[in-house]
Amino acid sequence: MTPFELRKKVRAGEFRLPTAGYCGEFAQANLVIVAKAYADAFLRFCLLNPRACPLLSVGQPGQWVMEALGQDVDIRTDVPGYYIYRDGELAEDLSSLAGLAEADLVVFAIGCSFSFEQMLLQANIRLRHIEQKKNVAMYRTNIANQPAGPFGGNLVVSMRPMKASDAIKAVQITSRFPAVHGAPIHIGEPLQIGIADLQKPDFGDAISINADEIPVFWACGVTPQDAIRSARLPLVVTHKPGHMLVTDIPNSTLAVF
Amino acid sequence: MTPFELRKKVRAGEFRLPTAGYCGEFAQANLVIVAKAYADAFLRFCLLNPRACPLLSVGQPGQWVMEALGQDVDIRTDVPGYYIYRDGELAEDLSSLAGLAEADLVVFAIGCSFSFEQMLLQANIRLRHIEQKKNVAMYRTNIANQPAGPFGGNLVVSMRPMKASDAIKAVQITSRFPAVHGAPIHIGEPLQIGIADLQKPDFGDAISINADEIPVFWACGVTPQDAIRSARLPLVVTHKPGHMLVTDIPNSTLAVF
Repeated sequence: MTPFELRKKVRAGEFRLPTAGYCGEFAQANLVIVAKAYADAFLRFCLLNPRACPLLSVGQPGQWVMEALGQDVDIRTDVPGYYIYRDGELAEDLSSLAGLAEADLVVFAIGCSFSFEQMLLQANIRLRHIEQKKNVAMYRTNIANQPAGPFGGNLVVSMRPMKASDAIKAVQITSRFPAVHGAPIHIGEPLQIGIADLQKPDFGDAISINADEIPVFWACGVTPQDAIRSARLPLVVTHKPGHMLVTDIPNSTLAVF
Repeated sequence: MTPFELRKKVRAGEFRLPTAGYCGEFAQANLVIVAKAYADAFLRFCLLNPRACPLLSVGQPGQWVMEALGQDVDIRTDVPGYYIYRDGELAEDLSSLAGLAEADLVVFAIGCSFSFEQMLLQANIRLRHIEQKKNVAMYRTNIANQPAGPFGGNLVVSMRPMKASDAIKAVQITSRFPAVHGAPIHIGEPLQIGIADLQKPDFGDAISINADEIPVFWACGVTPQDAIRSARLPLVVTHKPGHMLVTDIPNSTLAVF
């Protein structure tokens, strides 16, 4: 199934699943959608925090069709699930945005770690959360984001345990992909970035770490979602966690060297 | 002082010091010189173990002038000190090879970590052994080299303690320089590579590690010297430790991306 074919199924209401494992060679995108009044501040927030919020594409106010992300992409209908936050609280879980009345919403498409995970797997680096069919473990850190307007908060990271030699390879590989979070931001001792207990993630599932492994931490796309919820805007739309926009952008084209 | 000027002073007997800190923008080379009868096996050893033995240049039997390494480079006279090993034992400490009778010696010039240390310092990564004017700490590991002919033994590594964020940067930077050992081979727990006590290096000086630091290990140019001594060849010539050949090769030109 191509990304185009998958999006057609989504649009037809025939696909409502998490997108992990589908169209693995193509980038999947986190979505954050805010009113025009907050879009400039959120754009600055992304540019100030590029490790957590690497922008794949930004729409104009009211623009839903985003060809930059793929053939005939319509953000309102081509994502397998949406969350609507009102005043910072989850208000609705929708399968389409067709009914949204607001005319001036701005779409932000943010890179996703699925892209670099594909590159790690291709390099024979094992990823336990995938082998165990779990969500990756994510943690709030003590690293403050660069604030912009109402958006601030702390960096959220994802963690993948691996052998030291794989961790070194993973730095090399992910450094090539700044559009999908890039290099790790931390390796080793979790307390140094304010994580007290690796077995108690703030998001996702806990994962075991073997004695010969080291935890490797990447900036995570949950960071902007966390920041935007704490900003308690009247309305924010995001993809439903795990239910990403599958783009036509081959992961390989995101490599900067 | 240019590398050419430094080599002229060496040739004139006016410079007999360790070369660390001189001509910092240019690559310095480890030298291993063996008889033609062993050169093929040693070349294979280098090619099989490129992290420890990255070749900058290899001479023909009897070739002393190596323009590939710099203008008018004469290996017999342009290195500030030489060690002569006979049957694996240090036999002489010479300031020139002019008196060597053997006509069929083959010169191997091997990349040196001074080059990547310059790149790390330029990236504002602090290197404690340089700040404390010590030799870098080096350790024999439990990682077996790929053997070739009489050459085998275990990998020797150098260790530099740094903060995790600098360790990640150091992987990125040194990955660009495979000709001078490239990326680290290990990060973190020393026992995983057979090092029982970081405070007891096998070569060089012990160095303190702060609580917020992680040890980062690179393959080291002492590996081939160690291997070649254990092979107990009738004759091996090396540079005197720390007294390197200063080449005309700018470190920056060794970057592969």
